[in-house]
Amino acid sequence: MTYSPLIDNLVDAFRCLPGIGPKSAQRMAFHLLERDREGGVSLSQALDAAMGGVGRCKICRTLTEQDVCTLCGDPKRDTSIVCVVETPVDVLALELSGSYTGRYFVLMGHLSPIDGIGPDEIGISDLISRLQENTTREVILATNPTVEGEATAFYITEKVKSLGITVSRIAHGVPLGGELEYVDSGTLAHALSGRQVVE
Amino acid sequence: MTYSPLIDNLVDAFRCLPGIGPKSAQRMAFHLLERDREGGVSLSQALDAAMGGVGRCKICRTLTEQDVCTLCGDPKRDTSIVCVVETPVDVLALELSGSYTGRYFVLMGHLSPIDGIGPDEIGISDLISRLQENTTREVILATNPTVEGEATAFYITEKVKSLGITVSRIAHGVPLGGELEYVDSGTLAHALSGRQVVE
Repeated sequence: MTYSPLIDNLVDAFRCLPGIGPKSAQRMAFHLLERDREGGVSLSQALDAAMGGVGRCKICRTLTEQDVCTLCGDPKRDTSIVCVVETPVDVLALELSGSYTGRYFVLMGHLSPIDGIGPDEIGISDLISRLQENTTREVILATNPTVEGEATAFYITEKVKSLGITVSRIAHGVPLGGELEYVDSGTLAHALSGRQVVE
Repeated sequence: MTYSPLIDNLVDAFRCLPGIGPKSAQRMAFHLLERDREGGVSLSQALDAAMGGVGRCKICRTLTEQDVCTLCGDPKRDTSIVCVVETPVDVLALELSGSYTGRYFVLMGHLSPIDGIGPDEIGISDLISRLQENTTREVILATNPTVEGEATAFYITEKVKSLGITVSRIAHGVPLGGELEYVDSGTLAHALSGRQVVE
């Protein structure tokens, strides 16, 4: 049983979204058709504009439709610190913390030789040439605490240290509001080895 | 903190989908931008085509871009029975059961005076004139077993009976695979009053 071609296409097209199965896709399609055509048209236009218009910031490689993203273009940001993250959403997460005022470099992924993602694919050479021409004094590595993220951090550390720039890694440990009982052992091991003297 | 206007717009636009909050909208937008631009373009086109092109079947009122939907246009379907449902997805559910070969009439809602939805809004007059000109001998009411669905069924019953056409209501009772222990009391009451003699 199918509806009509346009509706079938729409239901299929929703399947490209992450976590959306056949039932959710159907629900979304009929919701828009029955109750929110205007929303559907806006979504179509927003998608069209973004898919065609959004490229990369030529300084930090994050997603933006401008040549240089808002953060890289902001003269108030501290240019002497560069924080390296895996994806554009990581930039948002760090910005929301409100405690970082430096610049970013977005890898758009992590080293993963098995998928053919090497240093060139994540723009390591861009990072190095940026560090060489700039007055950067510290690189903060904020890649994810996964095997690939750690490997990427290690690779960048070696490269950056040879330029005589300080390299730091964000702290891993027990999250605020977390209870020790429910924290995994890897995190606890990090929390112990990263302990700081109380003064 | 915002990204760039196009990305912000896209994240906002995803909020029109049912059950999609800010985090899911963000995840969808970045998934398409980082990993599936092609899917995003297809979705945009499918939305555009469907929002503009999909109207109502002039016989059964369901959503379709054709003048007459596939089911109403199928000469193999039994025209002497009309099943009245609330929404186009109800048609799909009944078709999937594989045990109905008649025609449909889709109300696209239910009577709800408090929201200003009266008989005209759900096309009761269309239904009546269709029944008058056709050779319909039975109308099956398959509106939802909710207060509004029952009220709608009751209203249609009165109207249709006066035309001398048989009116039936789908059975309500214990679903297959359900356990009595977990079935609500309203459903059990229906299951008891609708019991059939075993022969």
